[in-house]
Amino acid sequence: MPLFLDVHPAQPGVTAEAVAEAHRKDLAVQAKYGVRYIKYWYDPTTGKVFCLSEAPSKEAALAVHREAHGQMPDDIFEVQEYE
Amino acid sequence: MPLFLDVHPAQPGVTAEAVAEAHRKDLAVQAKYGVRYIKYWYDPTTGKVFCLSEAPSKEAALAVHREAHGQMPDDIFEVQEYE
Repeated sequence: MPLFLDVHPAQPGVTAEAVAEAHRKDLAVQAKYGVRYIKYWYDPTTGKVFCLSEAPSKEAALAVHREAHGQMPDDIFEVQEYE
Repeated sequence: MPLFLDVHPAQPGVTAEAVAEAHRKDLAVQAKYGVRYIKYWYDPTTGKVFCLSEAPSKEAALAVHREAHGQMPDDIFEVQEYE
Protein backbone atom coordinates (compact mmCIF):
# COMPACT_ATOMS: atom_id res chain seq x y z
CA MET A 1 0.00 0.00 0.00
CA PRO A 2 1.42 3.42 -0.86
CA LEU A 3 2.71 5.54 2.00
CA PHE A 4 1.95 9.27 2.23
CA LEU A 5 3.38 12.09 4.31
CA ASP A 6 1.24 15.21 4.46
CA VAL A 7 2.31 18.63 5.66
CA HIS A 8 -0.19 20.92 7.35
CA PRO A 9 0.25 24.69 7.46
CA ALA A 10 1.60 26.17 10.69
CA GLN A 11 -1.22 26.98 13.10
CA PRO A 12 0.26 29.02 15.94
CA GLY A 13 -1.62 28.40 19.16
CA VAL A 14 -3.13 25.08 18.17
CA THR A 15 -2.90 22.74 21.14
CA ALA A 16 -1.73 19.14 21.32
CA GLU A 17 -5.23 18.27 22.48
CA ALA A 18 -6.86 19.86 19.43
CA VAL A 19 -4.50 17.97 17.12
CA ALA A 20 -5.14 14.72 18.99
CA GLU A 21 -8.87 15.26 18.63
CA ALA A 22 -8.53 15.83 14.87
CA HIS A 23 -6.43 12.66 14.66
CA ARG A 24 -9.10 10.68 16.51
CA LYS A 25 -11.60 11.88 13.93
CA ASP A 26 -9.27 10.66 11.14
CA LEU A 27 -9.11 7.25 12.79
CA ALA A 28 -12.89 7.11 13.05
CA VAL A 29 -13.33 7.82 9.32
CA GLN A 30 -10.33 6.17 7.68
CA ALA A 31 -11.72 2.64 7.15
CA LYS A 32 -14.36 4.01 4.79
CA TYR A 33 -11.55 5.08 2.44
CA GLY A 34 -9.21 2.11 2.99
CA VAL A 35 -6.70 4.40 4.73
CA ARG A 36 -4.59 3.86 7.85
CA TYR A 37 -3.19 6.93 9.58
CA ILE A 38 -0.02 5.58 11.20
CA LYS A 39 1.69 8.43 13.07
CA TYR A 40 1.77 12.16 13.27
CA TRP A 41 4.25 14.74 14.46
CA TYR A 42 3.25 18.04 16.05
CA ASP A 43 5.43 21.07 16.76
CA PRO A 44 3.89 22.96 19.70
CA THR A 45 5.87 26.11 18.88
CA THR A 46 4.57 26.59 15.34
CA GLY A 47 1.51 24.34 15.31
CA LYS A 48 2.99 22.49 12.33
CA VAL A 49 1.62 18.95 11.86
CA PHE A 50 2.87 16.11 9.65
CA CYS A 51 0.78 12.96 9.17
CA LEU A 52 2.00 9.58 7.89
CA SER A 53 -0.60 7.30 6.33
CA GLU A 54 -0.99 4.20 4.21
CA ALA A 55 -3.65 4.76 1.59
CA PRO A 56 -4.70 3.45 -1.79
CA SER A 57 -4.14 6.94 -3.24
CA LYS A 58 -3.31 10.52 -2.31
CA GLU A 59 -6.96 11.39 -2.90
CA ALA A 60 -8.12 8.74 -0.41
CA ALA A 61 -5.76 10.03 2.28
CA LEU A 62 -7.00 13.58 1.70
CA ALA A 63 -10.65 12.46 1.70
CA VAL A 64 -10.21 11.21 5.27
CA HIS A 65 -8.96 14.59 6.49
CA ARG A 66 -11.71 16.37 4.55
CA GLU A 67 -14.51 14.28 6.00
CA ALA A 68 -13.07 13.93 9.51
CA HIS A 69 -12.34 17.58 10.30
CA GLY A 70 -11.70 19.60 7.15
CA GLN A 71 -8.18 20.63 8.15
CA MET A 72 -6.29 20.06 4.92
CA PRO A 73 -2.53 19.84 4.37
CA ASP A 74 -0.68 22.25 2.08
CA ASP A 75 1.20 19.33 0.56
CA ILE A 76 1.11 15.57 0.45
CA PHE A 77 3.91 13.36 -0.85
CA GLU A 78 3.93 9.67 -1.78
CA VAL A 79 7.03 8.51 0.02
CA GLN A 80 9.29 5.55 0.63
CA GLU A 81 10.47 5.05 4.19
CA TYR A 82 14.07 4.20 5.06
CA GLU A 83 16.03 3.73 8.26
CA MET B 1 16.15 13.92 23.80
CA PRO B 2 14.28 16.34 21.53
CA LEU B 3 12.93 14.99 18.24
CA PHE B 4 13.27 16.93 15.00
CA LEU B 5 11.67 16.60 11.59
CA ASP B 6 13.43 18.42 8.79
CA VAL B 7 12.05 19.19 5.35
CA HIS B 8 14.38 19.34 2.37
CA PRO B 9 13.51 21.27 -0.78
CA ALA B 10 12.20 19.25 -3.73
CA GLN B 11 15.06 18.03 -5.91
CA PRO B 12 13.53 16.61 -9.08
CA GLY B 13 15.67 13.82 -10.50
CA VAL B 14 17.48 12.99 -7.28
CA THR B 15 17.72 9.22 -6.99
CA ALA B 16 16.97 6.97 -4.03
CA GLU B 17 20.62 5.92 -4.18
CA ALA B 18 21.85 9.51 -3.89
CA VAL B 19 19.59 10.11 -0.90
CA ALA B 20 20.72 6.85 0.71
CA GLU B 21 24.35 7.87 0.24
CA ALA B 22 23.71 11.26 1.88
CA HIS B 23 21.97 9.45 4.75
CA ARG B 24 24.95 7.13 5.20
CA LYS B 25 27.14 10.22 5.49
CA ASP B 26 24.79 11.59 8.20
CA LEU B 27 25.13 8.33 10.10
CA ALA B 28 28.91 8.47 9.85
CA VAL B 29 29.04 12.01 11.31
CA GLN B 30 26.14 12.12 13.78
CA ALA B 31 27.89 10.78 16.91
CA LYS B 32 30.21 13.77 16.93
CA TYR B 33 27.16 15.99 17.53
CA GLY B 34 25.21 13.66 19.82
CA VAL B 35 22.57 13.18 17.11
CA ARG B 36 20.72 10.07 15.94
CA TYR B 37 19.08 10.15 12.52
CA ILE B 38 16.19 7.71 12.92
CA LYS B 39 14.28 7.52 9.63
CA TYR B 40 13.80 9.40 6.44
CA TRP B 41 11.12 9.54 3.78
CA TYR B 42 11.84 10.14 0.10
CA ASP B 43 9.37 10.98 -2.66
CA PRO B 44 10.86 9.75 -5.96
CA THR B 45 8.49 11.94 -7.99
CA THR B 46 9.50 15.28 -6.50
CA GLY B 47 12.80 14.42 -4.80
CA LYS B 48 11.35 15.71 -1.52
CA VAL B 49 13.08 14.32 1.59
CA PHE B 50 12.03 14.44 5.25
CA CYS B 51 14.44 13.34 8.01
CA LEU B 52 13.55 12.41 11.58
CA SER B 53 16.28 12.74 14.19
CA GLU B 54 16.90 12.84 17.90
CA ALA B 55 19.30 15.62 18.73
CA PRO B 56 20.30 17.83 21.64
CA SER B 57 19.26 20.88 19.58
CA LYS B 58 18.07 21.98 16.16
CA GLU B 59 21.55 23.36 15.54
CA ALA B 60 23.15 19.99 16.28
CA ALA B 61 20.83 18.20 13.85
CA LEU B 62 21.63 20.77 11.16
CA ALA B 63 25.37 20.56 11.87
CA VAL B 64 25.31 16.87 10.94
CA HIS B 65 23.76 17.57 7.54
CA ARG B 66 26.16 20.47 7.00
CA GLU B 67 29.27 18.45 7.74
CA ALA B 68 28.09 15.18 6.16
CA HIS B 69 27.01 16.45 2.74
CA GLY B 70 25.95 20.10 2.86
CA GLN B 71 22.40 19.42 1.67
CA MET B 72 20.39 21.56 4.06
CA PRO B 73 16.65 21.47 4.77
CA ASP B 74 14.41 24.47 4.17
CA ASP B 75 12.78 23.92 7.54
CA ILE B 76 13.28 21.97 10.72
CA PHE B 77 10.69 21.50 13.46
CA GLU B 78 11.02 20.26 17.02
CA VAL B 79 8.20 17.76 17.16
CA GLN B 80 6.33 15.39 19.42
CA GLU B 81 5.44 12.02 17.92
CA TYR B 82 2.03 10.41 18.36
CA GLU B 83 0.33 7.28 17.07
